[in-house]
Amino acid sequence: MAKRIGVILSGCGVFDGSEIHEAVLTLLALGRAGAKAVCMAPNIEQYHVINHLTQQETNEKRNVLVESARIARGDIKDIKDVKASDIDGLILPGGFGAAKNLSDFAFKGPDATVNPEVKRLLEEMVAAKKPIGAICIAPATLTKALSDKKPEVTIGNDVGTAQGIEAMGGRHHTCTVDMIHVDKNNKIVTTPAYMLGPGIKDVARGIEKLVAKVVELAG
Amino acid sequence: MAKRIGVILSGCGVFDGSEIHEAVLTLLALGRAGAKAVCMAPNIEQYHVINHLTQQETNEKRNVLVESARIARGDIKDIKDVKASDIDGLILPGGFGAAKNLSDFAFKGPDATVNPEVKRLLEEMVAAKKPIGAICIAPATLTKALSDKKPEVTIGNDVGTAQGIEAMGGRHHTCTVDMIHVDKNNKIVTTPAYMLGPGIKDVARGIEKLVAKVVELAG
Repeated sequence: MAKRIGVILSGCGVFDGSEIHEAVLTLLALGRAGAKAVCMAPNIEQYHVINHLTQQETNEKRNVLVESARIARGDIKDIKDVKASDIDGLILPGGFGAAKNLSDFAFKGPDATVNPEVKRLLEEMVAAKKPIGAICIAPATLTKALSDKKPEVTIGNDVGTAQGIEAMGGRHHTCTVDMIHVDKNNKIVTTPAYMLGPGIKDVARGIEKLVAKVVELAG
Repeated sequence: MAKRIGVILSGCGVFDGSEIHEAVLTLLALGRAGAKAVCMAPNIEQYHVINHLTQQETNEKRNVLVESARIARGDIKDIKDVKASDIDGLILPGGFGAAKNLSDFAFKGPDATVNPEVKRLLEEMVAAKKPIGAICIAPATLTKALSDKKPEVTIGNDVGTAQGIEAMGGRHHTCTVDMIHVDKNNKIVTTPAYMLGPGIKDVARGIEKLVAKVVELAG
């Protein structure tokens, strides 16, 4: 039986949703590892819509689940319908959506609130001792959701974000883009990806290692 | 000097734009080959917008260049500003956008019209003897644009699409998802990708070969 690894998407595009390269590289590495990706997203309105050509906010409204379905080619679930018992591991790609839609860390920093369904599933995974991977800025949302577990994570070397993670009860470890940090206690795996970049081939190296480790830890 | 390879995007999502996996796998393979990707798209309204969760058409309006910028992380040009002399090779990922926005082959079959800027750049590339790669359904649009060159292409094994290609003056060759077809005369490289699938790891094999061949042929 192929291991089933959940992938929480947060929209479709780096500035207001999932970072598309990080999400696709995660799906590619899962496929190559023989795992089955189970894409999911919250069925909520995006915090906002950014025109990715001009980086200006628009007055459009878009739905996180509907836009995430673009990355998943339509094969996606509402996260409220996914329980930890349905999957063997879980990965959160980055992009601003992970800190604007899955939580509001991008706006409120350590005072952020995590989407309740995202928080529920993360808590279920830790309770079930199943591994979680988080990429780029997603470790900030994960830290807020699991602050009582004192997660050890990396987002690379950005001082402000690292301080925010520590303020939420996490432990931040500096890391290069080609590497991962593993919190063995909590089975949490993180990599900086586009928090550092600079290019797709660079972020692919860390993401491949993250996916391999999550699949290995997934029972 | 890194070779500069153009990538024509057609929106962001398989049902109304670029197939996201194919586009990202192209960018990954270009990065790993040491080439510089030059993303571009026409600055036009999408033919339509499809909700990728329900596969139903919506009443939204979206712009092909603006949505393509999501895949390119904002680093993208209007195709009207790109000449063959700016690049060493050119690749068209698939997705319905390649046959709905770059041409209207999805609706009109062999009677399709190709976007004039896409047709111009493809003609300039052939005249300059620079290589062109086309993925998935994009070879249909390419064949229409270059019908007087009698391009040899593959879209896999779909009989109706293959007949359409032959009706436009092309020659269709059956091909598996892990392989490419090379038209040596015209320096055109094609691979079926999600015309066959089934999964991301399968389409990656053909796309990696296509990118390697385009980079090799790019002077």
